[in-house]
Amino acid sequence: MSLLDFLVGPPIATWKEGSEKIGVAKGIPVFGLDALGSAAYGPEAALTLLIPLGLAGLNHILPLTFGIIALLGIVFFSYRQTIAAYPGGGGSYTVARENLGTFPGLLAACALLIDYTLDAAVGISAGIGALTSAIPSLHPQTLWLCLSALLILTLVNLRGVRENGALFMVPTYLFLVCMLVAIGIGVAKTALADGHPVPVVAPPSAPAVVAAVSAWLLLKSFASGCTALTGVEAVSNGVQAFRDDRTKNARHTLAVIIAALMIMLAGIAYLVKAYKIVATDPNGSHYRSILSMLLGAVTGHGWFYYLSIGSILLILIFSANTAFADFPRVCHFIAEDGYLPVSFADRGRRLVYSEGILVLATITGLLLIGFGGITDRLIPLFAVGAFLAFTMSQAGMVFHWRRERGRGARRSMLINAVGAVSTGITTLIIIVAKFSEGAWITVLAIPSLLLLMYGVRRHYNKLIREIAVHTPLPEHRDPAPLMVVTLTGWSRVGKEALRTAMTLSDEVKVVHVIEDRNDKVRSPDEVCDRWTELVEKPAREGNLPVPELVVLKSPYRFVVTPIVNYILKLSKENPDRRVITVIPELMERRWYYYFLHTQRASLLKARLLMVGTDRISVLNIPWYLKHS
Amino acid sequence: MSLLDFLVGPPIATWKEGSEKIGVAKGIPVFGLDALGSAAYGPEAALTLLIPLGLAGLNHILPLTFGIIALLGIVFFSYRQTIAAYPGGGGSYTVARENLGTFPGLLAACALLIDYTLDAAVGISAGIGALTSAIPSLHPQTLWLCLSALLILTLVNLRGVRENGALFMVPTYLFLVCMLVAIGIGVAKTALADGHPVPVVAPPSAPAVVAAVSAWLLLKSFASGCTALTGVEAVSNGVQAFRDDRTKNARHTLAVIIAALMIMLAGIAYLVKAYKIVATDPNGSHYRSILSMLLGAVTGHGWFYYLSIGSILLILIFSANTAFADFPRVCHFIAEDGYLPVSFADRGRRLVYSEGILVLATITGLLLIGFGGITDRLIPLFAVGAFLAFTMSQAGMVFHWRRERGRGARRSMLINAVGAVSTGITTLIIIVAKFSEGAWITVLAIPSLLLLMYGVRRHYNKLIREIAVHTPLPEHRDPAPLMVVTLTGWSRVGKEALRTAMTLSDEVKVVHVIEDRNDKVRSPDEVCDRWTELVEKPAREGNLPVPELVVLKSPYRFVVTPIVNYILKLSKENPDRRVITVIPELMERRWYYYFLHTQRASLLKARLLMVGTDRISVLNIPWYLKHS
Repeated sequence: MSLLDFLVGPPIATWKEGSEKIGVAKGIPVFGLDALGSAAYGPEAALTLLIPLGLAGLNHILPLTFGIIALLGIVFFSYRQTIAAYPGGGGSYTVARENLGTFPGLLAACALLIDYTLDAAVGISAGIGALTSAIPSLHPQTLWLCLSALLILTLVNLRGVRENGALFMVPTYLFLVCMLVAIGIGVAKTALADGHPVPVVAPPSAPAVVAAVSAWLLLKSFASGCTALTGVEAVSNGVQAFRDDRTKNARHTLAVIIAALMIMLAGIAYLVKAYKIVATDPNGSHYRSILSMLLGAVTGHGWFYYLSIGSILLILIFSANTAFADFPRVCHFIAEDGYLPVSFADRGRRLVYSEGILVLATITGLLLIGFGGITDRLIPLFAVGAFLAFTMSQAGMVFHWRRERGRGARRSMLINAVGAVSTGITTLIIIVAKFSEGAWITVLAIPSLLLLMYGVRRHYNKLIREIAVHTPLPEHRDPAPLMVVTLTGWSRVGKEALRTAMTLSDEVKVVHVIEDRNDKVRSPDEVCDRWTELVEKPAREGNLPVPELVVLKSPYRFVVTPIVNYILKLSKENPDRRVITVIPELMERRWYYYFLHTQRASLLKARLLMVGTDRISVLNIPWYLKHS
Repeated sequence: MSLLDFLVGPPIATWKEGSEKIGVAKGIPVFGLDALGSAAYGPEAALTLLIPLGLAGLNHILPLTFGIIALLGIVFFSYRQTIAAYPGGGGSYTVARENLGTFPGLLAACALLIDYTLDAAVGISAGIGALTSAIPSLHPQTLWLCLSALLILTLVNLRGVRENGALFMVPTYLFLVCMLVAIGIGVAKTALADGHPVPVVAPPSAPAVVAAVSAWLLLKSFASGCTALTGVEAVSNGVQAFRDDRTKNARHTLAVIIAALMIMLAGIAYLVKAYKIVATDPNGSHYRSILSMLLGAVTGHGWFYYLSIGSILLILIFSANTAFADFPRVCHFIAEDGYLPVSFADRGRRLVYSEGILVLATITGLLLIGFGGITDRLIPLFAVGAFLAFTMSQAGMVFHWRRERGRGARRSMLINAVGAVSTGITTLIIIVAKFSEGAWITVLAIPSLLLLMYGVRRHYNKLIREIAVHTPLPEHRDPAPLMVVTLTGWSRVGKEALRTAMTLSDEVKVVHVIEDRNDKVRSPDEVCDRWTELVEKPAREGNLPVPELVVLKSPYRFVVTPIVNYILKLSKENPDRRVITVIPELMERRWYYYFLHTQRASLLKARLLMVGTDRISVLNIPWYLKHS
């Protein structure tokens, strides 16, 4: 236990819940890391697809970014309304389920869960990838670095929301400050230079034009840029994690996250055009990230450059934290409705949903190991889930307002309707644009997960139907059970088991297995030879019911099998009685002493549980050896 | 179970024992493979050390071989006598223990066990090594081939002695016939050519002389040649495996094995000298084995050559079988005396000592994996164990005859005394000659194993002292136990557990854990809210003792811990009563459904067993779900 205390901290009492809640300052790192971090890869993803257009591609980045920012605004207003309407936590799952029905709710949830899993794996590996390209000597350790980062994230999240927020505050705000300062300087320089600033460190010149602009290319670029929106939904699921007034705190957190993200996206788009920065081939040897070139162009390669790059690295690595914050919450809501195992609904020792954290960590770990810590191929799978969830959520809100009526409901409905349609269209764009690159995997994975969830619920339903009962106890006692004591020899352990059995029922049978050698001469055997003297006589003299000795001959030298068969037969012959097998068991205090024993007691218990029936029970009489 | 039936065959009844026994024809492959196979590596080991002497080294091979054959003769007469004196199995352990005492007995046993383990690993890897040098494309698969051979040996030995003998008969007799035919032809050719035969395929010419002959070199060569004697002891431990008249059958088997080995050793020594065959550097690229050169020289590279080489390969691979035949028997004898876990003494489903076979297979497997399937470095560790065992055994026989007196005892004693002295001296020679090459490991390993065995015996002694009892049952009944039923909710499962508990004792406590939220409003809870109606009222109306409801508040949301603490406290407060915890347990018929449950029942059972006392028992009431 003390190891667990050390790793994740001592348990927190339920009534201390309030003191574990967070405000806006901690809410931003807990729920915003993924959204903010996407400023580092969203524009990059869009620009990379524009490489074939050369310098001309930059003409398209402003309109594309404008589209993405508009979407972001729509999503913001939508979730802002949702947070107020669902102060108990109103993620896409809850909203879609309450307003559209179970299936749309689960559809949104599955999409989100898959997205978060990818998010966690890709976030960690992208961060470590950026680190190893900065320090190439670390490259051979990629997988270990990824798994270490995963371990840190898991432990920090198991420790609870407050500590998690405190830890990630420094890198989050450092990143925000660096980005805003750089954008501010860049915009000022551009304005002073009449829109044609001179870069401090010049970016590489644009490659040759190899393609003409096409709608398809712009569509793909837009779909890629939309990854900037993943993670925006996290706040709405986590409203309960905030201090009172929780709605206000959650809304402010969401507002800050989205405003910062919008400024960064707009600033980056404006500056890449002003400084004529085009993306470089990510698989080429001269690859440099957009932000690295931008920072160099605006501020040169001084200490500020390295500080900013460092903060970007940290943000990328820890952007997976949003998945860890939200995935367990989504699982919790689904489990409460019976579509996931109940344990997802329980809060662990630190008041967080530990099971969800551990499951996410396990799946992420397997993905990282499976891909050797380099998860590029997973990136196209992204964003489908997030946008599907946005769409379901906003469609749900439309129905919510229709029911609500009242003042302003009409306007709110309109906002959500616009949102639902635009994110819906974006979802289709993303699926079409990225289908062959891997989005089909998400499209297949969602129904599989859905089927699993319906299976879980069906199982629980059957279970409840089978064990539910609301009638009181009967007014009579059931007949006393038949006791079967397994005795290998006459020892303190066996004697104690027999004495206990005799206190519980008047019908006690003692089974004793001997080897069947098919010859006349029986080897001496204390239990058989001294039975009268050891058991029968004292029982008769004490006026107690006399236990019956049942000798089982074992031709194959098995011990467990004959006993199990005897008990099954006895139970069949007495269909109205419970049969309790009393198993004496030697308990050693040190594990390695168990090698000295045959473990027949454990084996017998396991076999009986495996092949037994409702009327067959096991009572174990442990005997703890003192000397060891 | 059917998989086990398929792999090792259906169980054999104890009374069918007789039909599983073997005669001389099967005894030779079962117990002789190692001894016979050593003809393939004993002379080679001796000759390799003589390489520095060049052609002149061959002058020493005849006297060295003569010494080894003389030792073999002495050992033969000794074990011949032992078999007659100990028809129940008279290995070095039994003989030394009965005549010299426990310590010498265990010393001999440890030496033998270590030797057999090395034997098994080196045998397999030498055989596979010969195979891969014949077919170099198999070389990368060395480890897998070794482990496959080990698996085959393990399964065949688990199947029983008879099937094992039948399987290995063909390669054993093929090898014997090939060797004897080749030696016969070689000797005839040498005689016809007046001692100077012309080789059909000339062996490589002798290397340059780089050292003068020295006593130390000859001693080391002798020590290496003595590996030819390992495995000779196996028959004496396995007398019980033979058909009646078992003494006669065992003696004939031993005689045939030793005679064949002597002829092969003598023939090989004679022919290498006649054909001027010197060993080649085993690490050099032009390495060829002595037997390969000899067969080539005598018969050329025709079909007979390849048939012989093939049989040698098989014999080498399967020479590990002797270790599998004898190691479990030695363990059985030691376990019967309490110096090894009892399970080594039990015969498995096929009447063989399965535990010993599995342990040997595991250790051998680990050695093979640890050394990557190439165990050259283990070879010098060999033979120390075998010769130590020979010495102890013969010294034991000397004392045996001294007690026996009678006709011929004096002569027998003399034979064994000569044997003890000569094998004793040989043991010292081997230790000295090979000490720095690795024999020190054996010298260290033997005392460690001895300590372990004494530790096992000491533990069993304490155990027996603690649980032994010979007094009958008391004439009164113990007080009825306190029943504690754990109830999470009112369901068929929990109700059944409560009903059962009420048939067993009048004092039933029902523990029910609720979350402690430190607020006034308690969440609704069926057990607490409807307790009077569900339990109290019907019990009173039926004139039954009323169970007591114990509500445990859990501040940390733990369920198992509060229950365990309550039971420990209850047991402490009632030092004269047994406390039986009744645990209702949902049983799913398919393993993957267990993910849907919290496994609290299993956890509670495990925790109670771990921290409990002799007076705390667990009664589980399983409920098998029908629908799944």
